[in-house]
Amino acid sequence: MPSTVLKTSKSLLESSKPLFKSPKPLLQMALDATDIDTALASIEHVADKLDVIEIGTILAFAHGVDSVRILREKYPNHIIVCDMKITDASAILTRLAMDAGANWVTVSAAAHIETIRSAKKVTDEFDGEVQIELYGHWTMEDAQAWVDMGIKQAIYHRSRDAELAGVSWTEEDLIKMQKLSDIGIELSITGGIVPDDLHLFKNLSAKSFIAGRALAGSNGRDIAENFHTEIGKHW
Amino acid sequence: MPSTVLKTSKSLLESSKPLFKSPKPLLQMALDATDIDTALASIEHVADKLDVIEIGTILAFAHGVDSVRILREKYPNHIIVCDMKITDASAILTRLAMDAGANWVTVSAAAHIETIRSAKKVTDEFDGEVQIELYGHWTMEDAQAWVDMGIKQAIYHRSRDAELAGVSWTEEDLIKMQKLSDIGIELSITGGIVPDDLHLFKNLSAKSFIAGRALAGSNGRDIAENFHTEIGKHW
Repeated sequence: MPSTVLKTSKSLLESSKPLFKSPKPLLQMALDATDIDTALASIEHVADKLDVIEIGTILAFAHGVDSVRILREKYPNHIIVCDMKITDASAILTRLAMDAGANWVTVSAAAHIETIRSAKKVTDEFDGEVQIELYGHWTMEDAQAWVDMGIKQAIYHRSRDAELAGVSWTEEDLIKMQKLSDIGIELSITGGIVPDDLHLFKNLSAKSFIAGRALAGSNGRDIAENFHTEIGKHW
Repeated sequence: MPSTVLKTSKSLLESSKPLFKSPKPLLQMALDATDIDTALASIEHVADKLDVIEIGTILAFAHGVDSVRILREKYPNHIIVCDMKITDASAILTRLAMDAGANWVTVSAAAHIETIRSAKKVTDEFDGEVQIELYGHWTMEDAQAWVDMGIKQAIYHRSRDAELAGVSWTEEDLIKMQKLSDIGIELSITGGIVPDDLHLFKNLSAKSFIAGRALAGSNGRDIAENFHTEIGKHW
């Protein structure tokens, strides 16, 4: 009897293991051209290898939210995020993006907590989500407040100092990311990220890896493949 | 002789007094419609009473930087500010706005110091200026760093908590503004501001007062007049 119980528990544990495992991170391409035609041309050859299309802040300001509408029409099945880095007037801005076909919008960590709440309320109407852009002097107390209101995602940029110093990812970056992951935040990770870096993040709840120019180049499909291979290895 | 010297000194002092006095604050209208036609209609009746036209974040995302171009063509002599609240990619975003005809762009206080420096470098090419949008946990140390690199302007929003609580301007707001003013930052002041509030700011280096809906209404010209009357009284 005890051995049967043990066996049952063990198989339960095994079969339920996937439930406890984070889902596979997604591959996201950021479109940051200053005109819509260049943006469309840059994604065409690699679109079927992407999960998430980002209308970057540059494209969104250059061409307006119409850029979201155009990408949505062309790519009806991708997740689309409009990277507005909303800091104020979040209800109107979020609705602009969602009405145009976005699934997610980004809101600045520097936004007032009520600004973030208003953005979330609008995304909820559309079954969308808010992603917090981690800029400025945000604290873990802020992060807990975001989680408490139901925010699930944040975008982590490799620290600028690391980038300028030619350092890949610092211990400090990884510790901060782990802390965010530990309180339940799914991270989209960006900042000159290459497939060989992905193993660094294998213990995190990683929502997506964001690349831009690397995917737009002539070997973009190969690079996308390399991202998926690394994702498959570690998640 | 001594009395002549005294007289000369006195008249010198008097004649030079205006040099030490802050220039008169400007009147700025924020255009935050979600379409360009509404924005254009909202400003027409009051444009000749304005010094600064703001392409609000909402309009800039809704219609893209073309909204700057359209307002610049129609109003060649106004100062135009594009309220992008830039948080990253500042060189490209600033150039987009300046090429379209903006004089000033706004950059988030949460932006990395090098992001702010890059924005300033581009505005310098156009004899333009950067305005820092005071959101998030900025510090006086940050503010000093902005001044040290030659930033002259910031935008102060009435605290959201005060606004939600129906309080006009708190002592805390005024103390923060005075500290910024004391280190040489010219403030553009916003957040449901009315002409009767202006006396509160008479000891500050006030660059502009920003209103939106109040100026768009049918009595917008009267309200603009009231702003100028109060400005004339206190500066």
